[in-house]
Amino acid sequence: MRIALGIEYDGTGFLGWQRLSHGATVQGALEQALSSVAAHPVDVTCAGRTDAGVHGVCQVVHFDTEARRDLRGWTLGACSNLPTGVAVLWAHAVPEDFHARFSARSRRYRYTLLNRPIRAALRARYVTWERLPLDAGRMHAAAQALLGEHDFSAFRAASCQAAHANRCVLAVSVHRSGEEVVVEIEANAFLHHMVRNIVGSLLPIGRGEQPVEWMAELLAGRNRDVAGPTALPNGLAFMGPRYEAHWGLPPEVSQ
Amino acid sequence: MRIALGIEYDGTGFLGWQRLSHGATVQGALEQALSSVAAHPVDVTCAGRTDAGVHGVCQVVHFDTEARRDLRGWTLGACSNLPTGVAVLWAHAVPEDFHARFSARSRRYRYTLLNRPIRAALRARYVTWERLPLDAGRMHAAAQALLGEHDFSAFRAASCQAAHANRCVLAVSVHRSGEEVVVEIEANAFLHHMVRNIVGSLLPIGRGEQPVEWMAELLAGRNRDVAGPTALPNGLAFMGPRYEAHWGLPPEVSQ
Repeated sequence: MRIALGIEYDGTGFLGWQRLSHGATVQGALEQALSSVAAHPVDVTCAGRTDAGVHGVCQVVHFDTEARRDLRGWTLGACSNLPTGVAVLWAHAVPEDFHARFSARSRRYRYTLLNRPIRAALRARYVTWERLPLDAGRMHAAAQALLGEHDFSAFRAASCQAAHANRCVLAVSVHRSGEEVVVEIEANAFLHHMVRNIVGSLLPIGRGEQPVEWMAELLAGRNRDVAGPTALPNGLAFMGPRYEAHWGLPPEVSQ
Repeated sequence: MRIALGIEYDGTGFLGWQRLSHGATVQGALEQALSSVAAHPVDVTCAGRTDAGVHGVCQVVHFDTEARRDLRGWTLGACSNLPTGVAVLWAHAVPEDFHARFSARSRRYRYTLLNRPIRAALRARYVTWERLPLDAGRMHAAAQALLGEHDFSAFRAASCQAAHANRCVLAVSVHRSGEEVVVEIEANAFLHHMVRNIVGSLLPIGRGEQPVEWMAELLAGRNRDVAGPTALPNGLAFMGPRYEAHWGLPPEVSQ
């Protein structure tokens, strides 16, 4: 049978999502924990891989197993075998044609900037510090140029292995909450480093060093070399994918 | 001259506030950093000491120095000499009769419970996990018995060195925010472990294991042995002291 899981993780102590032969990864820790519960080797497939230091609020994975455990057994059994920084939030039985990656209709990310003169001491692993005052309204206006289907080559990492750079941004917003400026973006899918590169280009606009129109110009130019630098990973959280309602998954990952 | 500082810290990596000859403490790290900036040994006095694992949102300290630095120099100089988990938020020159501890009119604490079936992976160092459903309304109602001047012996650690157990609670509230239940309490001063012991007794009320009236009974009984266990330190944050407005300190620590 096929099982879908919701996964929360703190990316700080991991070399990213994807299993590696050297060093700790979230996938590696999860597969090891699930293999203990299943009593056979388990391979998981995720909705979207994340880089080292990037957090997961509700990553979704699926895996196949012949082991008979109730859903609570998968959740609690995995949690008790996982390190502190990873937890299984829920388990759902899904049909064989559900695929954590290919069934996902969209993905959502959140990037949190701590915008004050002094660096973070509390929550330093969850925010990226920006010392200079940011105008969240300008950043929000600029980001609206990203809406819809575009070639996102301007915000694509050199290491990106996607077949093409066309992605469809469904929603994007920037708002201030006290000392924090929060960027939220939903797209059908993302290129490698796409969110961090977008944030890296919104920052000069927020600081007033580039005009609001710069975002549209960068996008149209399709040239990674002229866009802003890649923002640090720690401010980034993968909020999770969204699936069609008929799969019956929890509301936080359903359309 | 006398200088007051606002200090933010993540208590996770420290053996508490107070300087020790063995191991890392917040006071020790701060005094070392300030001594580097001042080029002479600096001793700081804080508004309220915190235990290992307890966080500081805006601790206040004062110290005396003959060194001439502008206020920005103290803030940025100290930050660059402090470990990641401690930051100096601001510096203010204060009169010689200002005392971080004795001038404080009240102190505020916040305790954050993560109330869901699965333990925390994200933000695990800032919340305490409670698996069973909590009724925040019952906890709030029970906590109102603490308001005013009382003998708080029921919630006083055996190790407490205070001269007497009378304290005056100025405000206390319990509210739910999504998966979190947040306890906020302000008093003129606190006994050792007082907030954690209060939270430990609110929990059985929130779970429905004790009646709402239990809090008033515990308080009146003045017997630590029958109250709830001490709640874990990681959910606790010292929000900071409050001083009279005439000292001219930032609004977050002024009445």
